[in-house]
Amino acid sequence: MKSRLDCIPCFQRQALEATRFATGDEHVQEQVLREVIHSLSGLDWKVSPLELAYGVHGIVRRVSGENDPYSDVKQRCNDAALRMYPELRKMVDESSTPLLTAVRLAIAGNIIDLGMGTKFDIKKTVVSTLKKDFRIDDFSKFVRTLNNSTNITYLADNAGEIVFDKLLLETILKEYDIEKILFAVKGAPFINDATLEDAIYAGLDQLPGIKFIGVGIGNGSEIEYSSEKFADILAASDIVISKGQGNYEAFSSYKEIFFLLIAKCPVIARDIGVKVGDIILKYSSKK
Amino acid sequence: MKSRLDCIPCFQRQALEATRFATGDEHVQEQVLREVIHSLSGLDWKVSPLELAYGVHGIVRRVSGENDPYSDVKQRCNDAALRMYPELRKMVDESSTPLLTAVRLAIAGNIIDLGMGTKFDIKKTVVSTLKKDFRIDDFSKFVRTLNNSTNITYLADNAGEIVFDKLLLETILKEYDIEKILFAVKGAPFINDATLEDAIYAGLDQLPGIKFIGVGIGNGSEIEYSSEKFADILAASDIVISKGQGNYEAFSSYKEIFFLLIAKCPVIARDIGVKVGDIILKYSSKK
Repeated sequence: MKSRLDCIPCFQRQALEATRFATGDEHVQEQVLREVIHSLSGLDWKVSPLELAYGVHGIVRRVSGENDPYSDVKQRCNDAALRMYPELRKMVDESSTPLLTAVRLAIAGNIIDLGMGTKFDIKKTVVSTLKKDFRIDDFSKFVRTLNNSTNITYLADNAGEIVFDKLLLETILKEYDIEKILFAVKGAPFINDATLEDAIYAGLDQLPGIKFIGVGIGNGSEIEYSSEKFADILAASDIVISKGQGNYEAFSSYKEIFFLLIAKCPVIARDIGVKVGDIILKYSSKK
Repeated sequence: MKSRLDCIPCFQRQALEATRFATGDEHVQEQVLREVIHSLSGLDWKVSPLELAYGVHGIVRRVSGENDPYSDVKQRCNDAALRMYPELRKMVDESSTPLLTAVRLAIAGNIIDLGMGTKFDIKKTVVSTLKKDFRIDDFSKFVRTLNNSTNITYLADNAGEIVFDKLLLETILKEYDIEKILFAVKGAPFINDATLEDAIYAGLDQLPGIKFIGVGIGNGSEIEYSSEKFADILAASDIVISKGQGNYEAFSSYKEIFFLLIAKCPVIARDIGVKVGDIILKYSSKK
């Protein structure tokens, strides 16, 4: 999807928030904001929000001298989610529809999104997401596709959230004949997005048949979001499960992807055709 | 008060919102945003938010070609408040503490603030503000000062809200020996702030002893916010009642002003030492 004008001030807000995780020095914060503004001024604003975001957070890293401003908060999110895991596991095990419950929980985990601000309540979100109606509900298509799949590509989103993703994948592995999982994390720190380190910390590496790949834009990632190679990987997958807004921004025009997310940003909600706060399990058959 | 870094993206959001009131043309919206960014880049960000805001909204007016983008919405706010007036009047008349009720309602009216976004619920705010504890409560000082006053300078804030201000002034006139009121409105359209036209539409001109003055920064206002002349007017007043965040931004360092507002912006809330959503009746004795 393309950026909208609303993204321009929003990225500045995000840059400021990211810099404040890195340093309390207001001079550095102002320098970051001025450089971000200067950089955005020179750009075409029609590119994907993700492209703009990578530029913005590159400036945060360079000017603040901190390669991973969200490091501590990511750790706290991982730990909080891991503490919840036994209880979440129990919810799935005791559910009469374990896959649906695991899908709902994986969507609930998407509330852990520091790019959207620092205020969220994961426990409340779990409770509400278990009861809430999907605004877009392609669950039956999801089940049919899993039935015909032996491999999954899973586009992860945030640290902490990946504990919920682990639970979904475990549930899928139990019910369906999946042999291979390609779990795509960020190839380098980017906001509070999960990296390989987070995935291992959350125990994703213990799932049978799982492999990891580091994606991103520049920043030393193994594979570029918009590369042909990545498009080939997606096309070769029996099923692609995409978590969160960032992956929607990058892949909304690809075909045959299941997008699982909470719409948190008005620009993305509008692109999907839903409201902020809505929960989505959307099958994209566009190309 | 000084601006903070958070104000910089927030003004861009506000400029975009203002431009969208003026035109649906996305090219014009982008041009405004780019000019606002260019202008902000060249400025010292330590000046008052109000100074930055006047520059930003000047660009909106010039580029959009619309001198008063909020004209329609202001009209709707005035009409909505006027429809509520009989009911509000009754609340004050039936109250065992009419002045306190009128003060609370005047603060509730401050929720009508398009600068902070377009979502607010005036009826809900009335109900909650009547019950809520003041976070800063200088009501007894307010009563004492009124007892020793024969004239009032009243710094108005927004269209619609001034209907609530009228009710407060009527209540004061009934209970105290006030001979003169100087009611300061904006000298020219600025966001949804009340102008003389709004004040007359709301019936403020029917209050005995009332005079009006148009304040602002540039833009053809009778008197500049930061002028000595205005400082002299404030100093000569027995009591100064200031409504809303904009007047707090402009006059927080003046002595002997009563600030009545709902803290809606995190930067202002922090400056006052309260939380977003708090209601304030603050006597400022600084200088």
